[in-house]
Amino acid sequence: SEPIRATLFPGDGIGPEIGEAVKQVFGAAEVPIEWEEHYVSDKVDPRTESFLTWESLESVRRNGVGLKGPMATPIGKGHRSLNLTLRKELGLYANVRPCQSLPGYKTRYDDVNLVTIRENTEGEYSGLEHQVVRGVVESLKIITRQASLRVAEYAFHYAKANGRQRVSAIHKANIMRKTDGLFLKCCREVAEKYPEITYEEVIIDNCCMMLVKNPALFDVLVMPNLYGDIISDLCAGLIGGLGLTPSCNIGEGGIALAEAVHGSAPDIAGKNLANPTALLLSSVMMLRHLKLNDKADRIQNAILSTIAEGKYRTVDLGGSSSTTDFTQAVCDHL
Amino acid sequence: SEPIRATLFPGDGIGPEIGEAVKQVFGAAEVPIEWEEHYVSDKVDPRTESFLTWESLESVRRNGVGLKGPMATPIGKGHRSLNLTLRKELGLYANVRPCQSLPGYKTRYDDVNLVTIRENTEGEYSGLEHQVVRGVVESLKIITRQASLRVAEYAFHYAKANGRQRVSAIHKANIMRKTDGLFLKCCREVAEKYPEITYEEVIIDNCCMMLVKNPALFDVLVMPNLYGDIISDLCAGLIGGLGLTPSCNIGEGGIALAEAVHGSAPDIAGKNLANPTALLLSSVMMLRHLKLNDKADRIQNAILSTIAEGKYRTVDLGGSSSTTDFTQAVCDHL
Ligand SMILES: CC(C)[C@H](C(=O)O)[C@@H](O)C(=O)O
Ligand SMILES: CC(C)[C@H](C(=O)O)[C@@H](O)C(=O)O
Repeated sequence: SEPIRATLFPGDGIGPEIGEAVKQVFGAAEVPIEWEEHYVSDKVDPRTESFLTWESLESVRRNGVGLKGPMATPIGKGHRSLNLTLRKELGLYANVRPCQSLPGYKTRYDDVNLVTIRENTEGEYSGLEHQVVRGVVESLKIITRQASLRVAEYAFHYAKANGRQRVSAIHKANIMRKTDGLFLKCCREVAEKYPEITYEEVIIDNCCMMLVKNPALFDVLVMPNLYGDIISDLCAGLIGGLGLTPSCNIGEGGIALAEAVHGSAPDIAGKNLANPTALLLSSVMMLRHLKLNDKADRIQNAILSTIAEGKYRTVDLGGSSSTTDFTQAVCDHL
Repeated sequence: SEPIRATLFPGDGIGPEIGEAVKQVFGAAEVPIEWEEHYVSDKVDPRTESFLTWESLESVRRNGVGLKGPMATPIGKGHRSLNLTLRKELGLYANVRPCQSLPGYKTRYDDVNLVTIRENTEGEYSGLEHQVVRGVVESLKIITRQASLRVAEYAFHYAKANGRQRVSAIHKANIMRKTDGLFLKCCREVAEKYPEITYEEVIIDNCCMMLVKNPALFDVLVMPNLYGDIISDLCAGLIGGLGLTPSCNIGEGGIALAEAVHGSAPDIAGKNLANPTALLLSSVMMLRHLKLNDKADRIQNAILSTIAEGKYRTVDLGGSSSTTDFTQAVCDHL
């Protein structure tokens, strides 16, 4: 059968190296994917004189799936982060991050098994800020019924499809009664359509306290943009950090752009030191989106076994393996 | 010498019981304080027909110091939380929460020793929200140079006065460039006046990840209102929860209102089950503000010894002691 085409944005810094790792593992696992690789970076593309080209966006739109590495923000006033530009241009409305304790990689927690689902397009990220008078600056948070319903629908759909029991909506509606109040209202409306899923509402400050005391209390969490940004990183910290956690962005028309959310780590770029785990696990999320579940399971098991075995560990995890050593070990586990 | 007058707002729910605990411990330690007790509650005062009287506010203003228990939000549309009303009326611009691992009370962390300092008057708590068109709601976050400088000054002053080495400003200025940007600018200005204190800036999502991985990295943290709300609860969770963490609000003209920030726990109110630790430790912060350091040290040691001994532990901490048993144990340790 025809190979499936998918877009690859390796990104900046360590991006190309961890991108190579994915290609190598996909090769070893004989995943029927043909990559369309696109140069999207904080540096101007010498061929196109732009940071992000129309062709790059079209590639994801056409393929419906893609994988992206870290992208730094272009330097110079007024340039938005390329991450945000992609979210906006591709209508990536939900950022999904499963977060599960990794057997063999010890942290203070061994009981984390949750998924954060973040509204990814509005809220505190509107970009609307102005100075009213000298020394007084305002920022607009925008919550819409449409975006709130959409992400709530996705969260409940995800919970059901993945056999999860409970959805917690995270908010600060005791203070932001109208904005977060609307978000909650939308979650409640959707919750009614899923009587088999337990629905609860948790205030963000309390949520963070509960997460550090007892993360096993949580299953699926859905929330507005900034809370999702904060809580997804907190949860990543519980299991070891952003180098270990995958994510996938869900967009309009069913687009899925899987993404490693860690930084581009310019200090170690090109040195064969980067940990490819987050991008590899993100690529597994992309495979599941494509319903290539056998390949996804096989690759995921190989990654988890390599980590559990603990023989090959990159520098960020206290080991001394190179990116290519770790990647080879994953291939050997396939 | 004349006793010092201080205001006491026992508050709702378990408030009166834990307020009694403080009075008993202060009596046993012969603290030269005379309490002016005021009825501030989510229920209308039968004598005055109001939730919060002018006399109550005047009492704190006149005495310059006070202690408050938990207050529930009055029921009925449009009633703001009494906590927020007090912050506003008394100009309580900084909420200070020391957070230190308690020997003898085991959590996943034994290396927490930090202080969060939260801007307490503006930011996301402006209360300005409106619906633009049906289904589109906006909320205004307001950051001012005046309030940012004031809380930054307080944070550096606090760090220096308490022998702390480092101040971290927490922000999301990569997204909210103007509002959080102004907050950072003010912190930098103040930092220049304290060359002996290390100053750094940490993005809130990264901060939460670092806090759960390695809280020992932090010393004093200063931040806008909502971030302070979130991070102070997260930190409380690291050492066991809000039942164990004190706080003190610093206001205009040097007012100090110490406060237990946990809820009013109506379910256990009146049952002699509440944990008075947070209010007791808050009262110690009040004593330090009054420069009654000997009394503060003595009481703090008695509380910490009681917890370390572990013989008397209230229900929230997995024990079976009553409020009065625990309080008696603290008195015995004096
Ligand atoms: C890099 C930054 C703009 C981004 C965000 O705030 O969303 C990052 O923290 C993330 O979570 O993807
Ligand atoms: C009760 C609530 C209004 C309050 C806040 O959000 O400030 C609380 O969480 C706190 O931290 O004191």
